Amino acid sequence: MAYNSIILRLELSLNQVNFGDVASAISKAGGDITSIDIIRPGHEVTVRDVTVHVADTAESKVVEAIKSLDGIRLVNVSDRTFLAHLGGKISVQPTLPIKNRDDLSIVYTPGVARVCTAIHEDPQKAYSLTIKRNTVAVVTDGTAVLGLGDIGPHAAAPVMEGKAMLFKQLAGVDAFPICLDTQDTEEIIRTIKAISPIFGGINLEDISSPRCFEIETRLSEDLDIPIFHDDQHGTAIVVIAGLLNALKVVGKRMDQVRIVVNGIGAAGVSICKMLLAAGVKRLVPVDRDGAIIRGGDYSHPMWAWLAEQPQVEANPGSLHDMISGADVFIGVSRGGLLGGNDVQKMARDSIVFAMANPEPEIDPKEAIPHVRVFATGRSDYPNQINNVLVFPGIFRGALDCRARRINEPMKLAAARAIASVVSERELNDQYIIPSIFNEQVVIKVRNAIVEAAILTGVSRRIPHDFR
Amino acid sequence: MAYNSIILRLELSLNQVNFGDVASAISKAGGDITSIDIIRPGHEVTVRDVTVHVADTAESKVVEAIKSLDGIRLVNVSDRTFLAHLGGKISVQPTLPIKNRDDLSIVYTPGVARVCTAIHEDPQKAYSLTIKRNTVAVVTDGTAVLGLGDIGPHAAAPVMEGKAMLFKQLAGVDAFPICLDTQDTEEIIRTIKAISPIFGGINLEDISSPRCFEIETRLSEDLDIPIFHDDQHGTAIVVIAGLLNALKVVGKRMDQVRIVVNGIGAAGVSICKMLLAAGVKRLVPVDRDGAIIRGGDYSHPMWAWLAEQPQVEANPGSLHDMISGADVFIGVSRGGLLGGNDVQKMARDSIVFAMANPEPEIDPKEAIPHVRVFATGRSDYPNQINNVLVFPGIFRGALDCRARRINEPMKLAAARAIASVVSERELNDQYIIPSIFNEQVVIKVRNAIVEAAILTGVSRRIPHDFR
Repeated sequence: MAYNSIILRLELSLNQVNFGDVASAISKAGGDITSIDIIRPGHEVTVRDVTVHVADTAESKVVEAIKSLDGIRLVNVSDRTFLAHLGGKISVQPTLPIKNRDDLSIVYTPGVARVCTAIHEDPQKAYSLTIKRNTVAVVTDGTAVLGLGDIGPHAAAPVMEGKAMLFKQLAGVDAFPICLDTQDTEEIIRTIKAISPIFGGINLEDISSPRCFEIETRLSEDLDIPIFHDDQHGTAIVVIAGLLNALKVVGKRMDQVRIVVNGIGAAGVSICKMLLAAGVKRLVPVDRDGAIIRGGDYSHPMWAWLAEQPQVEANPGSLHDMISGADVFIGVSRGGLLGGNDVQKMARDSIVFAMANPEPEIDPKEAIPHVRVFATGRSDYPNQINNVLVFPGIFRGALDCRARRINEPMKLAAARAIASVVSERELNDQYIIPSIFNEQVVIKVRNAIVEAAILTGVSRRIPHDFR
Repeated sequence: MAYNSIILRLELSLNQVNFGDVASAISKAGGDITSIDIIRPGHEVTVRDVTVHVADTAESKVVEAIKSLDGIRLVNVSDRTFLAHLGGKISVQPTLPIKNRDDLSIVYTPGVARVCTAIHEDPQKAYSLTIKRNTVAVVTDGTAVLGLGDIGPHAAAPVMEGKAMLFKQLAGVDAFPICLDTQDTEEIIRTIKAISPIFGGINLEDISSPRCFEIETRLSEDLDIPIFHDDQHGTAIVVIAGLLNALKVVGKRMDQVRIVVNGIGAAGVSICKMLLAAGVKRLVPVDRDGAIIRGGDYSHPMWAWLAEQPQVEANPGSLHDMISGADVFIGVSRGGLLGGNDVQKMARDSIVFAMANPEPEIDPKEAIPHVRVFATGRSDYPNQINNVLVFPGIFRGALDCRARRINEPMKLAAARAIASVVSERELNDQYIIPSIFNEQVVIKVRNAIVEAAILTGVSRRIPHDFR
């Protein structure tokens, strides 16, 4: 069930009604008052903004309940979520003020010409003298936004802006949303290459599968700045982080467990690849038509790749067949695919990451009695697997060492860094992954990325704290 | 002559040298001390940062003079201009903080999904719920940057960042630099169209002629947001503004004067078009090979267009021939083309706008004795014709009324608005154009743009103050 915060602006005639009446009417209709602001005080008439947390199905009941009271006028109902979005969620700010002609001649003409000339003579100076040093493009074509699908570039913008906010607040990275009015693979690649000079990195976002694979691969080959498709690798990294800790909790090893991954799209493919890189020996990728098997014949290029891997099992079957005896289930698919009887058939001390949004692959209430470690993508259960844990630190590290790319060792290092934030002493069934507000996360991921970039030869600068 | 501000970090041994010695050595070498900061105080040794304003030709003399003193160590010489550019000149900031999970669920998942859905159902809501309302792209391909020419997209970035600073500080517009790694007309058009959804307007910048004409025209046809090539129209608008006031000073009328425009590139073409729209009856466009004449045969599409205009003179000749008897000379070409004897041949009460950068078409010292109103693009003479007067107000107005385009009436309205900031009482030979720091400029230009947009039917929203 989805909850919203609504703000009711109420004008109360105090000789006819008191606030207690209002509060009890709201509560009775299913609303929970979380704050009250007095907009206009008064002895006879007062205006107040009342913020109410309410299930979206009960919103109209709350409004009706208030309207039915005497002595009260409902001036306005607004929605905190929409209010927060008014005018957008990011702004562009100068780093210093232009107070007079002297300032102007330094940051603009004629002084800026000397800076331009310096970069023209040595293009690497773009990293010290322009925003390239700290700036990332968050690029989407709006084809696979949240669970909403192909909603187009305009409607995708609020997600990209939200991501830009997180980049800045969590990691100090300047991120700018680019929403593309094209879905053509070649044109997307051409466009991103054309706009790349001002950016120090490209975060691809919500681009549908399978185009996302080619776009990322081609851009990584052609550009010398890091390209990172968050839906693939952000998700995979945080899943591996959670799994590393979950395996510790249950006392099993990566090379011993049998893992079912359900939903072999952008995230599922990257999860499978990282699991193999992390040493998994028994992998069962499953999509709508059942298991993707070793030796199978698939037109999807990444499925064909999986079919060639010796660690992928060769037995065909449905998800319900394959989950039997599995140690780990990782779902990046859709809600309500599994029941309690399915997870009951798993091996002892089973691990289930049911990450479909907004509804997990299995109802948590059905799963929890049968599963040792249970995680979802949601914030209302323990163990939230959220890729907000990943992208800020990844780009902080990549920018700090001017990494040319984000390679597999860097991704695995990031996963291990996230896992390491939960200490041995803290680790338990209900706490395998840190909160996104844990300040250690970005620092540890950043350090791991810098170190792995230096070790694998893709860094172009050694940050001061690594010298 | 170009001046820089350099900062000298000096370690003084006070038993061997005192600050008076240092100051007089700097002065004698041609430097002007503008500020002193004590970095480390001390009785025996002190460290100070001394900012010195100095001609670039005398920088090394100042450094040598200091090194020749005993008891002084020159720790470091830095350059204020380069220091101001370190790390770039703009940043991206969230408009509100994400303090907890509740905030996160409003600006990011899951709450953001409702906002995305609202825009998907009604794309015009992008203007209220995303940054589109207030955001402009400053787009260049780096081919015609300042007087530096084709220096490429990386080296052009400091100019675009400076422009973004001015947009924000002067008009509250969020502007983001896009530096294109392509010079192909079709690819530039395709790229800008592809990235347009997040932007409420496009400011084209420093794109060389004649490609700039087609790029602007095609984008204006294909997109429903305003496209404005500042080098063309920003310059033309501020020239017309200055000319309107200069004509008042000398008591001549637009339809009476004979005007020579020298340099028929991006800016020159737009100036000629605006002069014709403003009622000029005798126009002489001149380029390297002499006058562009009525009835002439030209491959350059805009020159061919000029040759068809009845107000363009039909007599051929060189710049030196054509300037004879002219009331107005407008130069957007290069330095040192004219001498005192040339402007002496102009009509009485002549007006000369010599706007080549950094050296004007005629040395001000040679021109001023013979000319009634003299203006340049430089800040070290009166009457600076600077397009910083134009673009902030143009886009403030266009965004406020959601203009589909910036048409000719809007440009002329902007020119008249800039001219109107100088009152009849203030107006004189030395003051025909306001300072860019005059706060009336942006307000008046914005209002003029909104009004003209409404009158010509290109606005999609009536701002509150126009209702």
